[in-house]
Amino acid sequence: MRPQVKDDVIVKPFAVGWDPKDAIMDDPDNHIERYLSRLTGMFYNKEAAERYLKEHGDTLIYEVYEKEIPQRDGEIQFCSSITHPGEIGGEYFMTKGHFHARRDTAEIYYCIRGRGFMLMEKEDGEYELGEMYPGRTVYVPGYFAHRSINTGNEPLISLAVYPGDAGHNYGSIETSGFKHVVVERDGKPVVIENPRYGNMQT
Amino acid sequence: MRPQVKDDVIVKPFAVGWDPKDAIMDDPDNHIERYLSRLTGMFYNKEAAERYLKEHGDTLIYEVYEKEIPQRDGEIQFCSSITHPGEIGGEYFMTKGHFHARRDTAEIYYCIRGRGFMLMEKEDGEYELGEMYPGRTVYVPGYFAHRSINTGNEPLISLAVYPGDAGHNYGSIETSGFKHVVVERDGKPVVIENPRYGNMQT
Repeated sequence: MRPQVKDDVIVKPFAVGWDPKDAIMDDPDNHIERYLSRLTGMFYNKEAAERYLKEHGDTLIYEVYEKEIPQRDGEIQFCSSITHPGEIGGEYFMTKGHFHARRDTAEIYYCIRGRGFMLMEKEDGEYELGEMYPGRTVYVPGYFAHRSINTGNEPLISLAVYPGDAGHNYGSIETSGFKHVVVERDGKPVVIENPRYGNMQT
Repeated sequence: MRPQVKDDVIVKPFAVGWDPKDAIMDDPDNHIERYLSRLTGMFYNKEAAERYLKEHGDTLIYEVYEKEIPQRDGEIQFCSSITHPGEIGGEYFMTKGHFHARRDTAEIYYCIRGRGFMLMEKEDGEYELGEMYPGRTVYVPGYFAHRSINTGNEPLISLAVYPGDAGHNYGSIETSGFKHVVVERDGKPVVIENPRYGNMQT
Protein backbone atom coordinates (compact mmCIF):
# COMPACT_ATOMS: atom_id res chain seq x y z
CA MET A 1 0.00 0.00 0.00
CA ARG A 2 1.11 3.51 -0.69
CA PRO A 3 1.34 5.70 2.38
CA GLN A 4 -1.23 8.47 2.38
CA VAL A 5 -0.87 12.02 3.54
CA LYS A 6 -3.67 13.43 5.60
CA ASP A 7 -6.50 15.12 3.77
CA ASP A 8 -6.23 18.37 5.69
CA VAL A 9 -2.64 19.09 4.72
CA ILE A 10 -2.10 22.34 2.82
CA VAL A 11 0.33 21.79 -0.03
CA LYS A 12 2.97 24.49 -0.39
CA PRO A 13 4.55 25.29 -3.75
CA PHE A 14 7.47 22.99 -4.44
CA ALA A 15 9.71 21.78 -7.21
CA VAL A 16 11.32 18.39 -7.65
CA GLY A 17 13.71 17.20 -10.32
CA TRP A 18 15.17 14.19 -12.01
CA ASP A 19 17.73 13.51 -14.67
CA PRO A 20 15.60 12.88 -17.78
CA LYS A 21 17.89 9.94 -18.61
CA ASP A 22 16.87 7.81 -15.63
CA ALA A 23 13.94 9.70 -14.03
CA ILE A 24 15.25 8.89 -10.56
CA MET A 25 13.57 11.60 -8.53
CA ASP A 26 15.91 13.77 -6.44
CA ASP A 27 13.85 13.79 -3.29
CA PRO A 28 10.96 11.32 -3.56
CA ASP A 29 8.49 10.60 -0.79
CA ASN A 30 7.90 7.10 -2.15
CA HIS A 31 9.96 4.76 -4.28
CA ILE A 32 7.93 1.71 -5.27
CA GLU A 33 9.81 -1.24 -6.78
CA ARG A 34 8.05 -4.24 -8.31
CA TYR A 35 10.11 -7.41 -8.64
CA LEU A 36 9.29 -10.51 -10.66
CA SER A 37 8.89 -12.71 -7.57
CA ARG A 38 5.62 -10.90 -6.84
CA LEU A 39 4.53 -10.61 -10.46
CA THR A 40 4.90 -14.10 -12.04
CA GLY A 41 1.10 -14.50 -12.10
CA MET A 42 0.77 -11.33 -14.16
CA PHE A 43 2.39 -12.88 -17.22
CA TYR A 44 0.12 -14.86 -19.48
CA ASN A 45 2.72 -17.62 -19.54
CA LYS A 46 3.09 -18.04 -15.81
CA GLU A 47 5.29 -21.14 -16.14
CA ALA A 48 7.75 -19.17 -18.27
CA ALA A 49 7.76 -16.46 -15.59
CA GLU A 50 8.54 -19.00 -12.88
CA ARG A 51 11.33 -20.49 -15.01
CA TYR A 52 12.73 -16.98 -15.65
CA LEU A 53 12.74 -16.30 -11.93
CA LYS A 54 14.71 -19.51 -11.25
CA GLU A 55 17.21 -18.88 -14.04
CA HIS A 56 17.76 -15.10 -13.68
CA GLY A 57 16.93 -14.54 -10.03
CA ASP A 58 14.58 -11.85 -8.83
CA THR A 59 14.35 -9.12 -11.46
CA LEU A 60 13.17 -5.52 -11.20
CA ILE A 61 10.29 -5.20 -13.69
CA TYR A 62 9.14 -1.65 -12.97
CA GLU A 63 9.41 1.16 -10.46
CA VAL A 64 7.76 4.41 -9.55
CA TYR A 65 8.98 7.58 -7.82
CA GLU A 66 6.47 9.99 -6.40
CA LYS A 67 5.85 12.89 -4.09
CA GLU A 68 3.04 12.57 -1.57
CA ILE A 69 0.10 14.79 -2.46
CA PRO A 70 -3.20 14.73 -0.52
CA GLN A 71 -5.68 12.41 -2.24
CA ARG A 72 -8.40 14.94 -2.79
CA ASP A 73 -10.29 16.64 -5.60
CA GLY A 74 -8.45 19.66 -7.02
CA GLU A 75 -4.95 18.33 -6.41
CA ILE A 76 -2.75 16.83 -9.10
CA GLN A 77 -0.81 13.58 -8.54
CA PHE A 78 2.32 12.87 -10.52
CA CYS A 79 5.05 10.25 -10.61
CA SER A 80 7.89 8.97 -12.73
CA SER A 81 7.05 5.55 -14.13
CA ILE A 82 10.00 3.37 -15.19
CA THR A 83 9.34 0.03 -16.90
CA HIS A 84 12.50 -1.95 -17.55
CA PRO A 85 13.19 -3.73 -20.83
CA GLY A 86 12.81 -7.49 -21.20
CA GLU A 87 10.38 -10.23 -22.03
CA ILE A 88 9.07 -13.45 -20.60
CA GLY A 89 7.48 -16.15 -22.75
CA GLY A 90 7.22 -13.64 -25.59
CA GLU A 91 5.41 -11.08 -23.43
CA TYR A 92 7.11 -7.75 -22.83
CA PHE A 93 7.94 -6.43 -19.38
CA MET A 94 5.06 -4.24 -18.23
CA THR A 95 3.43 -2.68 -15.21
CA LYS A 96 0.71 -4.51 -13.30
CA GLY A 97 -1.84 -1.97 -14.51
CA HIS A 98 -4.75 -0.48 -12.66
CA PHE A 99 -8.17 1.09 -12.80
CA HIS A 100 -8.67 4.22 -10.79
CA ALA A 101 -10.63 3.82 -7.57
CA ARG A 102 -12.75 6.70 -8.86
CA ARG A 103 -13.45 5.05 -12.18
CA ASP A 104 -14.35 8.16 -14.19
CA THR A 105 -10.96 9.84 -13.76
CA ALA A 106 -8.46 10.20 -16.61
CA GLU A 107 -4.65 10.06 -16.61
CA ILE A 108 -1.95 11.22 -18.98
CA TYR A 109 1.47 9.68 -19.61
CA TYR A 110 4.14 11.88 -21.13
CA CYS A 111 6.92 9.68 -22.50
CA ILE A 112 10.42 10.92 -21.68
CA ARG A 113 12.54 7.98 -22.86
CA GLY A 114 12.21 4.58 -24.48
CA ARG A 115 9.59 2.94 -26.66
CA GLY A 116 6.45 1.04 -25.90
CA PHE A 117 2.70 1.07 -25.63
CA MET A 118 0.02 2.01 -23.19
CA LEU A 119 -2.59 -0.75 -23.17
CA MET A 120 -5.98 0.74 -22.22
CA GLU A 121 -8.90 -1.61 -21.68
CA LYS A 122 -12.43 -1.23 -20.40
CA GLU A 123 -14.24 -3.86 -18.39
CA ASP A 124 -16.28 -4.80 -21.47
CA GLY A 125 -13.07 -5.65 -23.34
CA GLU A 126 -12.90 -2.53 -25.54
CA TYR A 127 -9.22 -1.71 -25.84
CA GLU A 128 -6.76 0.64 -27.44
CA LEU A 129 -2.98 0.81 -27.71
CA GLY A 130 -1.31 4.21 -27.37
CA GLU A 131 2.17 4.29 -28.84
CA MET A 132 4.83 5.76 -26.57
CA TYR A 133 8.09 7.41 -27.54
CA PRO A 134 9.78 10.59 -26.35
CA GLY A 135 7.57 13.67 -26.67
CA ARG A 136 4.40 11.62 -26.91
CA THR A 137 1.47 12.05 -24.53
CA VAL A 138 -1.10 9.26 -24.15
CA TYR A 139 -4.51 10.22 -22.79
CA VAL A 140 -6.14 7.44 -20.76
CA PRO A 141 -9.84 8.30 -20.33
CA GLY A 142 -11.83 7.27 -17.29
CA TYR A 143 -13.05 3.66 -17.05
CA PHE A 144 -9.96 2.34 -18.86
CA ALA A 145 -7.55 0.10 -16.96
CA HIS A 146 -4.07 0.90 -18.21
CA ARG A 147 -0.63 -0.65 -18.25
CA SER A 148 2.74 0.48 -19.65
CA ILE A 149 4.46 -2.06 -21.91
CA ASN A 150 8.14 -1.72 -22.81
CA THR A 151 8.78 -2.99 -26.34
CA GLY A 152 12.27 -1.46 -26.60
CA ASN A 153 15.77 -2.11 -25.34
CA GLU A 154 16.07 0.67 -22.78
CA PRO A 155 13.87 1.75 -19.84
CA LEU A 156 10.46 3.10 -20.83
CA ILE A 157 10.16 6.29 -18.78
CA SER A 158 7.05 8.43 -18.44
CA LEU A 159 5.71 11.22 -16.35
CA ALA A 160 2.25 10.08 -15.23
CA VAL A 161 -0.28 12.69 -14.08
CA TYR A 162 -3.77 12.11 -12.68
CA PRO A 163 -6.42 13.82 -10.57
CA GLY A 164 -5.82 14.11 -6.83
CA ASP A 165 -8.74 11.90 -5.88
CA ALA A 166 -8.39 9.23 -8.60
CA GLY A 167 -6.88 6.54 -6.38
CA HIS A 168 -5.79 3.10 -7.56
CA ASN A 169 -7.69 -0.15 -7.91
CA TYR A 170 -5.50 -3.17 -8.64
CA GLY A 171 -7.99 -5.77 -7.43
CA SER A 172 -9.77 -6.86 -10.59
CA ILE A 173 -6.54 -6.72 -12.59
CA GLU A 174 -4.89 -9.11 -10.14
CA THR A 175 -7.78 -11.56 -10.26
CA SER A 176 -9.02 -11.25 -13.85
CA GLY A 177 -6.09 -9.67 -15.68
CA PHE A 178 -6.36 -7.82 -18.96
CA LYS A 179 -8.37 -9.46 -21.72
CA HIS A 180 -5.59 -8.56 -24.15
CA VAL A 181 -1.85 -9.01 -23.88
CA VAL A 182 0.94 -7.67 -26.06
CA VAL A 183 3.49 -10.23 -27.22
CA GLU A 184 6.42 -10.25 -29.63
CA ARG A 185 5.88 -12.13 -32.90
CA ASP A 186 8.58 -12.00 -35.58
CA GLY A 187 10.18 -9.10 -33.74
CA LYS A 188 6.99 -7.05 -33.67
CA PRO A 189 4.41 -6.31 -30.97
CA VAL A 190 1.09 -8.09 -31.57
CA VAL A 191 -2.09 -8.07 -29.47
CA ILE A 192 -3.51 -11.49 -28.59
CA GLU A 193 -6.33 -12.59 -26.29
CA ASN A 194 -5.17 -13.54 -22.84
CA PRO A 195 -5.74 -17.29 -22.41
CA ARG A 196 -5.78 -16.85 -18.63
CA TYR A 197 -8.24 -13.92 -18.62
CA GLY A 198 -10.64 -14.13 -15.66
CA ASN A 199 -8.37 -16.63 -13.99
CA MET A 200 -5.05 -14.96 -13.20
CA GLN A 201 -4.63 -16.36 -9.70
CA THR A 202 -4.43 -20.05 -10.55
CA MET B 1 -11.20 32.87 -25.58
CA ARG B 2 -10.38 29.22 -25.85
CA PRO B 3 -13.03 27.20 -27.67
CA GLN B 4 -14.74 24.71 -25.42
CA VAL B 5 -15.84 21.19 -26.19
CA LYS B 6 -19.24 20.18 -24.99
CA ASP B 7 -19.50 18.69 -21.54
CA ASP B 8 -21.24 15.52 -22.66
CA VAL B 9 -18.49 14.41 -25.04
CA ILE B 10 -16.96 11.03 -24.24
CA VAL B 11 -13.19 11.20 -24.62
CA LYS B 12 -11.68 8.23 -26.46
CA PRO B 13 -8.12 7.12 -25.79
CA PHE B 14 -5.67 9.09 -27.90
CA ALA B 15 -2.01 9.93 -28.21
CA VAL B 16 -0.41 13.12 -29.43
CA GLY B 17 3.26 13.92 -29.93
CA TRP B 18 5.77 16.67 -30.32
CA ASP B 19 9.43 16.97 -30.91
CA PRO B 20 10.85 17.64 -27.41
CA LYS B 21 13.12 20.30 -28.99
CA ASP B 22 10.31 22.66 -29.96
CA ALA B 23 7.14 21.15 -28.39
CA ILE B 24 5.13 22.03 -31.48
CA MET B 25 2.23 19.60 -31.12
CA ASP B 26 1.65 17.32 -34.13
CA ASP B 27 -2.10 17.65 -34.22
CA PRO B 28 -3.27 20.38 -31.85
CA ASP B 29 -6.87 21.49 -31.45
CA ASN B 30 -5.73 24.95 -30.37
CA HIS B 31 -2.60 26.97 -30.96
CA ILE B 32 -2.63 30.14 -28.89
CA GLU B 33 -0.04 32.80 -29.71
CA ARG B 34 0.53 35.88 -27.57
CA TYR B 35 2.27 38.81 -29.23
CA LEU B 36 3.75 41.87 -27.56
CA SER B 37 1.20 44.24 -29.13
CA ARG B 38 -1.41 42.80 -26.76
CA LEU B 39 0.91 42.44 -23.78
CA THR B 40 2.72 45.78 -23.37
CA GLY B 41 0.68 46.57 -20.24
CA MET B 42 1.87 43.33 -18.63
CA PHE B 43 5.45 44.58 -18.28
CA TYR B 44 6.21 46.65 -15.21
CA ASN B 45 8.00 49.12 -17.47
CA LYS B 46 5.19 49.71 -19.93
CA GLU B 47 7.00 52.54 -21.69
CA ALA B 48 9.95 50.25 -22.39
CA ALA B 49 7.50 47.68 -23.80
CA GLU B 50 5.97 50.27 -26.11
CA ARG B 51 9.43 51.35 -27.26
CA TYR B 52 10.41 47.70 -27.82
CA LEU B 53 7.30 47.23 -29.95
CA LYS B 54 8.16 50.23 -32.11
CA GLU B 55 11.80 49.24 -32.51
CA HIS B 56 11.46 45.47 -32.99
CA GLY B 57 7.94 45.13 -34.37
CA ASP B 58 5.38 42.75 -33.00
CA THR B 59 7.14 39.94 -31.17
CA LEU B 60 5.90 36.50 -30.15
CA ILE B 61 6.27 36.33 -26.37
CA TYR B 62 4.69 32.95 -25.64
CA GLU B 63 2.50 30.28 -27.17
CA VAL B 64 0.50 27.25 -26.15
CA TYR B 65 -0.53 24.08 -27.98
CA GLU B 66 -3.36 21.99 -26.60
CA LYS B 67 -5.89 19.30 -27.28
CA GLU B 68 -9.51 20.03 -26.42
CA ILE B 69 -10.65 18.07 -23.40
CA PRO B 70 -14.09 18.54 -21.81
CA GLN B 71 -13.87 20.99 -18.93
CA ARG B 72 -15.21 18.72 -16.24
CA ASP B 73 -14.16 17.07 -13.02
CA GLY B 74 -12.24 13.82 -13.54
CA GLU B 75 -10.64 14.83 -16.84
CA ILE B 76 -7.03 15.98 -17.18
CA GLN B 77 -6.08 19.03 -19.24
CA PHE B 78 -2.60 19.35 -20.70
CA CYS B 79 -0.72 21.66 -23.04
CA SER B 80 2.74 22.55 -24.21
CA SER B 81 3.75 25.95 -22.90
CA ILE B 82 6.48 27.77 -24.82
CA THR B 83 7.86 31.06 -23.48
CA HIS B 84 10.36 32.69 -25.79
CA PRO B 85 13.63 34.24 -24.58
CA GLY B 86 14.07 37.97 -24.25
CA GLU B 87 13.63 40.89 -21.91
CA ILE B 88 12.04 44.30 -21.84
CA GLY B 89 13.15 47.02 -19.46
CA GLY B 90 15.11 44.41 -17.50
CA GLU B 91 12.07 42.17 -17.11
CA TYR B 92 12.20 38.73 -18.66
CA PHE B 93 9.72 37.51 -21.26
CA MET B 94 6.95 35.67 -19.46
CA THR B 95 3.39 34.43 -19.75
CA LYS B 96 0.47 36.61 -18.72
CA GLY B 97 -0.22 34.28 -15.81
CA HIS B 98 -3.55 33.17 -14.39
CA PHE B 99 -5.49 31.95 -11.44
CA HIS B 100 -7.76 28.98 -11.99
CA ALA B 101 -11.46 29.75 -12.26
CA ARG B 102 -11.87 27.02 -9.66
CA ARG B 103 -9.38 28.57 -7.26
CA ASP B 104 -8.57 25.47 -5.21
CA THR B 105 -7.15 23.48 -8.14
CA ALA B 106 -3.45 22.73 -8.55
CA GLU B 107 -1.28 22.48 -11.67
CA ILE B 108 2.07 20.96 -12.47
CA TYR B 109 4.67 22.13 -14.98
CA TYR B 110 7.21 19.60 -16.19
CA CYS B 111 10.12 21.43 -17.80
CA ILE B 112 11.30 19.90 -21.07
CA ARG B 113 13.75 22.53 -22.27
CA GLY B 114 15.24 25.87 -21.27
CA ARG B 115 15.68 27.65 -17.95
CA GLY B 116 13.48 29.88 -15.92
CA PHE B 117 11.15 30.25 -13.00
CA MET B 118 7.53 29.71 -12.16
CA LEU B 119 6.32 32.70 -10.18
CA MET B 120 3.49 31.62 -7.87
CA GLU B 121 1.62 34.27 -5.90
CA LYS B 122 -1.47 34.30 -3.72
CA GLU B 123 -3.89 37.18 -3.53
CA ASP B 124 -2.43 38.16 -0.14
CA GLY B 125 0.99 38.58 -1.77
CA GLU B 126 2.58 35.35 -0.48
CA TYR B 127 4.84 34.19 -3.27
CA GLU B 128 7.30 31.52 -4.25
CA LEU B 129 9.65 30.97 -7.18
CA GLY B 130 9.98 27.43 -8.55
CA GLU B 131 13.15 26.93 -10.56
CA MET B 132 12.65 25.32 -13.95
CA TYR B 133 15.13 23.32 -15.99
CA PRO B 134 14.78 20.06 -17.90
CA GLY B 135 13.50 17.20 -15.75
CA ARG B 136 12.11 19.54 -13.12
CA THR B 137 8.46 19.51 -12.04
CA VAL B 138 6.98 22.55 -10.30
CA TYR B 139 3.85 22.00 -8.23
CA VAL B 140 1.54 25.03 -8.21
CA PRO B 141 -0.99 24.56 -5.40
CA GLY B 142 -4.51 25.92 -5.55
CA TYR B 143 -5.03 29.64 -4.88
CA PHE B 144 -1.68 30.59 -6.45
CA ALA B 145 -1.66 32.67 -9.62
CA HIS B 146 1.25 31.47 -11.73
CA ARG B 147 3.37 32.68 -14.59
CA SER B 148 6.33 31.15 -16.48
CA ILE B 149 9.41 33.37 -16.73
CA ASN B 150 12.18 32.63 -19.21
CA THR B 151 15.56 33.66 -17.79
CA GLY B 152 17.59 31.77 -20.41
CA ASN B 153 18.63 32.14 -24.03
CA GLU B 154 16.41 29.47 -25.61
CA PRO B 155 12.66 28.78 -25.41
CA LEU B 156 11.39 27.70 -21.99
CA ILE B 157 9.24 24.67 -22.75
CA SER B 158 7.00 22.88 -20.28
CA LEU B 159 4.24 20.33 -20.24
CA ALA B 160 1.49 21.87 -18.10
CA VAL B 161 -1.14 19.58 -16.55
CA TYR B 162 -4.20 20.56 -14.51
CA PRO B 163 -7.61 19.24 -13.48
CA GLY B 164 -10.36 19.08 -16.08
CA ASP B 165 -12.57 21.62 -14.36
CA ALA B 166 -9.86 24.09 -13.22
CA GLY B 167 -10.56 26.72 -15.87
CA HIS B 168 -8.64 29.98 -16.27
CA ASN B 169 -9.12 33.37 -14.71
CA TYR B 170 -7.00 36.14 -16.24
CA GLY B 171 -9.13 39.02 -15.05
CA SER B 172 -7.47 40.11 -11.81
CA ILE B 173 -4.01 39.56 -13.30
CA GLU B 174 -4.84 41.91 -16.17
CA THR B 175 -6.14 44.60 -13.87
CA SER B 176 -3.93 44.23 -10.79
CA GLY B 177 -0.93 42.27 -12.05
CA PHE B 178 1.41 40.31 -9.85
CA LYS B 179 2.71 41.99 -6.72
CA HIS B 180 6.18 40.71 -7.56
CA VAL B 181 8.11 40.80 -10.81
CA VAL B 182 11.36 39.09 -11.76
CA VAL B 183 14.01 41.30 -13.34
CA GLU B 184 17.61 40.91 -14.33
CA ARG B 185 20.16 42.70 -12.13
CA ASP B 186 23.88 42.17 -12.81
CA GLY B 187 22.99 39.21 -15.02
CA LYS B 188 20.95 37.47 -12.33
CA PRO B 189 17.21 37.15 -11.73
CA VAL B 190 16.01 39.19 -8.78
CA VAL B 191 12.49 39.62 -7.33
CA ILE B 192 11.29 43.18 -6.86
CA GLU B 193 7.94 44.69 -5.95
CA ASN B 194 5.83 45.69 -8.93
CA PRO B 195 5.50 49.50 -8.90
CA ARG B 196 2.33 49.23 -11.02
CA TYR B 197 0.67 46.57 -8.83
CA GLY B 198 -3.07 47.17 -8.57
CA ASN B 199 -2.93 49.53 -11.51
CA MET B 200 -1.87 47.58 -14.61
CA GLN B 201 -4.36 49.12 -17.02
CA THR B 202 -3.17 52.69 -16.88
